[in-house]
Amino acid sequence: MSLIVQKFGGSSVKDAERIKNVARIIAETYLKGNDVIVVLSAQGDTTDDLIAKAGEINPHASKREMDMLLSTGEQISVALCAMALEVMGLPVVSLAAWQVGIQSSGVHSDARIRRIDSERVQAELDQHRIVIVTGFQGVDRSGDVTTLGRGGSDTSAVALAAAFRADLCQIFTDVDGVYTTDPRLVPNARKLDEITYDEMLELASQGAQVLHNRSVELAKKFKVNLEVVSSLERKPGTKVKEVTKMMEKTNIAGVAKDTSIARIALVGLQHNPGVAFQVFDLLSKHNINVDVILQSIGREETKDITFTIHKKDQEEAETILNEHRAALRFDHIEADDKIGKVSIVGAGLMSNCGVAAKMFEALYEAGINIQMINTSEIRVSVLLDEEDVNRAVKAIHAKFFDEI
Amino acid sequence: MSLIVQKFGGSSVKDAERIKNVARIIAETYLKGNDVIVVLSAQGDTTDDLIAKAGEINPHASKREMDMLLSTGEQISVALCAMALEVMGLPVVSLAAWQVGIQSSGVHSDARIRRIDSERVQAELDQHRIVIVTGFQGVDRSGDVTTLGRGGSDTSAVALAAAFRADLCQIFTDVDGVYTTDPRLVPNARKLDEITYDEMLELASQGAQVLHNRSVELAKKFKVNLEVVSSLERKPGTKVKEVTKMMEKTNIAGVAKDTSIARIALVGLQHNPGVAFQVFDLLSKHNINVDVILQSIGREETKDITFTIHKKDQEEAETILNEHRAALRFDHIEADDKIGKVSIVGAGLMSNCGVAAKMFEALYEAGINIQMINTSEIRVSVLLDEEDVNRAVKAIHAKFFDEI
Repeated sequence: MSLIVQKFGGSSVKDAERIKNVARIIAETYLKGNDVIVVLSAQGDTTDDLIAKAGEINPHASKREMDMLLSTGEQISVALCAMALEVMGLPVVSLAAWQVGIQSSGVHSDARIRRIDSERVQAELDQHRIVIVTGFQGVDRSGDVTTLGRGGSDTSAVALAAAFRADLCQIFTDVDGVYTTDPRLVPNARKLDEITYDEMLELASQGAQVLHNRSVELAKKFKVNLEVVSSLERKPGTKVKEVTKMMEKTNIAGVAKDTSIARIALVGLQHNPGVAFQVFDLLSKHNINVDVILQSIGREETKDITFTIHKKDQEEAETILNEHRAALRFDHIEADDKIGKVSIVGAGLMSNCGVAAKMFEALYEAGINIQMINTSEIRVSVLLDEEDVNRAVKAIHAKFFDEI
Repeated sequence: MSLIVQKFGGSSVKDAERIKNVARIIAETYLKGNDVIVVLSAQGDTTDDLIAKAGEINPHASKREMDMLLSTGEQISVALCAMALEVMGLPVVSLAAWQVGIQSSGVHSDARIRRIDSERVQAELDQHRIVIVTGFQGVDRSGDVTTLGRGGSDTSAVALAAAFRADLCQIFTDVDGVYTTDPRLVPNARKLDEITYDEMLELASQGAQVLHNRSVELAKKFKVNLEVVSSLERKPGTKVKEVTKMMEKTNIAGVAKDTSIARIALVGLQHNPGVAFQVFDLLSKHNINVDVILQSIGREETKDITFTIHKKDQEEAETILNEHRAALRFDHIEADDKIGKVSIVGAGLMSNCGVAAKMFEALYEAGINIQMINTSEIRVSVLLDEEDVNRAVKAIHAKFFDEI
């Protein structure tokens, strides 16, 4: 007998039919003799509807009250799903995060899970009940409801799998696994049978939207066996684990793209020790995440620092930097939001010098100009004109996956 | 500085405009220097919408999961109302019943409040925050969410007022107080400035729908100063208290009607000691409430027992009684659901013999036949043909209130 955690997202529980479908999947798992903990998101548009309700009353509502409001969405899902299992005559109980004791930090709308009390859930499992838990939320030290921010329900599922040492944590989505690239863009993209935590992390942070980084990081830390699987079709998904048995070690796991970024260049910086620290410290204090950073060598008296950030932060970043122009001693800012990033990800990629070259070759053959390059142990990213991004993904994917 | 509890029902918070209106009433009370605890019901049709959602999935869902589902309704209300007060710059916090610690019995969908923890609410009041609490719900010993059944939000408000020794508990509704009878039926019905707990209890149980019995009973027990007041117009409502200073002691507080009842007669009962006990014990075991009971004197060998119950219970009651016909030794059942009850209520009514006579006189003058009579210390009820009920209310109201 195994303990399996199953997580279903908002589109998987969006209406009565979908909830019944989810109940059938859970029932099948339970009737095979497994213990099952289920984690659910809010139904389809519920969260958006609630945000709209709040907007009519107070567009600048406190995050504390927004969390109080939004957390009702998952509670509706878990109660309805429990009812669907009751119809099948199965023993089931739904629990909100505060009932489970999912203890989180007090940062409303973006809380971190600190600890999960095991008592209530364990008592229910001991009674052989299916336990259905609200994803995306926790309760802080003062007893206030928190929400976990983006990817929160995946994180709830992985945290529960870690806390109860589950044998498997299945993330059900409306795609059937992790692909070598976006199948809507490249129709012959392949589904991966397995992928390492590190590869999944890089793919997720480079734009693949199947799993959120936080949940993968947590899975890696606690060695949780993750599986991304379809809630609509019964077929094997993609396993995310520590080490994979890749058939061809030289190949990459996938190609990812990200067009939500903007590039900022600080031009004509004086040689000023610690200026890079000052710039990025300033941005981080305003919660602006910086991705690729490039610093010119500075053959002349001045140098440039170029970096990318999320498009939504561009205006704020420019304002903040201009406010500190005198202290930072740069000449002016050049900003560009018509750019995109394409990355290849694969374990052992950088120790295999042919791989990066193969990527650049594909881009060269397609006549695509590279603006910046950034690498990690298992990833190579290039910055391109936004209009070249899709063509680049196709060319790179074809180079790695069609030419074998 | 006083502590005031204010309760607003579902129609008072049904949309953004109404919630803003409620926030203005709360703000006005708070800005006069009062501490304020607010109790809210779910918005307008939310509860019905949630019940419909459940019905699509499981028409016989467990009450435990229904409570889990329905309790989200009030949580949405309290969060939205807190946001409306935030717009005004007022310090406010919304709390669900489990956060307050409204401890209830474990009877799902019809729980009773056992105790209210004072810690969290008191801490918030000490910070001069307006505290907005979900009505209609509690949490049982095992940490499960319960709902309090009919009139639950009124009961929550009175229980909070009792626990925190509030100076006043205001129940805001869409009528502006308690009337001498239904103003839709009798246009010159008068609003009462004040009414005793006992009178209110009798009026409520005899069909007046302004306040639910449970909340009035609780208010009486803990001597909570209640006020029924309009959420739409700013004018004085009706005060419910221990003793009122009625100008004319001989007059009644109001005339109530109830057409939701049915009459059952067990005809030809053998003289059988304890048969009345057996009959009503049987019904109470099936949760069927019996109201007026009349037993014939039994001049012959057999006697009859006649009683009234709610229309919805009629079929079940007949089935149960027929199943036990042999043991109970009656000949047959006569049932009638085309009846109604009209009551007059007034403190000291029965010690003033002219009052009941005045009621019967009004009915006689209107040519209305009385089927059964039932009295309490402060009430006289008559059973009539259903078609005579409205005419009876008008005649009695005119006799008591127009002839002065």
